[in-house]
Amino acid sequence: RCSSSVFFNHPITQSPFPMPIQALTFDIFGTVFDWRTTIIREGERLDREKGVQADWPRFADAWRGGYEPAMDRVRRGELPWFNIDRLHRMILDDLLVEFEIDGLSEAEKDHMNRVWHRLIPWPDAVEGINRLRRKYVVAALSNGNIALLTNMAKHAGVTWDCVLSAELARHYKPDPQVYGTAADLLELPPSDILMVAAHIHDLKGAQAVGFKTAFIPRLMEYGPDGNPDQQPDPSFDLVAKDLIDLATQLGL
Amino acid sequence: RCSSSVFFNHPITQSPFPMPIQALTFDIFGTVFDWRTTIIREGERLDREKGVQADWPRFADAWRGGYEPAMDRVRRGELPWFNIDRLHRMILDDLLVEFEIDGLSEAEKDHMNRVWHRLIPWPDAVEGINRLRRKYVVAALSNGNIALLTNMAKHAGVTWDCVLSAELARHYKPDPQVYGTAADLLELPPSDILMVAAHIHDLKGAQAVGFKTAFIPRLMEYGPDGNPDQQPDPSFDLVAKDLIDLATQLGL
Repeated sequence: RCSSSVFFNHPITQSPFPMPIQALTFDIFGTVFDWRTTIIREGERLDREKGVQADWPRFADAWRGGYEPAMDRVRRGELPWFNIDRLHRMILDDLLVEFEIDGLSEAEKDHMNRVWHRLIPWPDAVEGINRLRRKYVVAALSNGNIALLTNMAKHAGVTWDCVLSAELARHYKPDPQVYGTAADLLELPPSDILMVAAHIHDLKGAQAVGFKTAFIPRLMEYGPDGNPDQQPDPSFDLVAKDLIDLATQLGL
Repeated sequence: RCSSSVFFNHPITQSPFPMPIQALTFDIFGTVFDWRTTIIREGERLDREKGVQADWPRFADAWRGGYEPAMDRVRRGELPWFNIDRLHRMILDDLLVEFEIDGLSEAEKDHMNRVWHRLIPWPDAVEGINRLRRKYVVAALSNGNIALLTNMAKHAGVTWDCVLSAELARHYKPDPQVYGTAADLLELPPSDILMVAAHIHDLKGAQAVGFKTAFIPRLMEYGPDGNPDQQPDPSFDLVAKDLIDLATQLGL
């Protein structure tokens, strides 16, 4: 059935479903996976095991906060193409100094950096994606690199039909090349693909290339004091409270 | 248990398992999927529906036979990068003339070309891959393009952790760039990846880049009168009679 939170502003989609889409592409960090809770939890374990005692919520926010500036340095050509694992490590090395976390071996730092490969999915993610997968091609489409996305899905029990990444375009979202490359690789017109994300700039980027858009507000992404995107742009095709609700709205 | 058909020639793998591998990459056409039976079966359906009456076994062999020469034209630069869907269509258009199959609409030709998206897996494939997936990252690594591989797996109920393709390297196997790109995207040393294939030239290509190799002879790939690869090269790491046997040999 069709929830009251469905928006349809495109004249070609007068009726709520079936939408004329064949594939769904998913933003990952924040939309499908709860990076903040995972990093805090693993940090607290490090406290117990190594007596580190850091402010892990602030650490998690600072790590994530370094991500956009790091991608911008790649965009501006200050850095060559560095994938997200490498950008995460660059930011981590600075944070270990800033937070005065000493005494980690190279193997421990590498393990810590790979916390992004072990993210916990939001509680609705596995069921929602499995339901959507019954009818549609479901693909990751993240700034995360292929290995990171593959390991993360496997670790969490999330099944993608196909893992797509900014890495394949050597551009970071919301640059249009990322969405364009995804549509080319899926051999679909952009209008047959629904971009699913918790972030307005990502959906706007996809929309600029012709994708349909589903906004999933994730009110806790940045924690209780965070400032997440909450208000959908009126141009978005769908708004759902989570991925199970999205599946329901799409008749699955 | 360790089957007598296990070969271990690398000094680093003295004991049969666990092999020091983290991922398996699979050749698709012939190794996981039975292209010939699928094409014959769909052709015979076309006979019934459209009264075509072609020699479908010969048609299937000719279609597949056009594949290596078509990739060679891309390799030599006679054609720009054409993905396999496009090469298949180019070959198909010639075969429709040669076999005097008339009266197909553009939509019907397109549907026929996409028989490669609907291939039937060998009977052991789904179970074998699911067992291997419990421990290893399992990835397609085919000359087929991403959309083709994604649709084929979804249609057949095969689950990959990740779909990799010659398309991502813009080179066709056995060119080294294909295997090198796969190892880069998986962020693994080539020696931690096991290439699984029914074709000696594919395994030799992977081996040249440092991959480990598992040979799965598919004696019926080219039909009862075919001439498939049967004798493993002594340098291969493993030989298994099918993908279930491979899983068993790897302790799964």
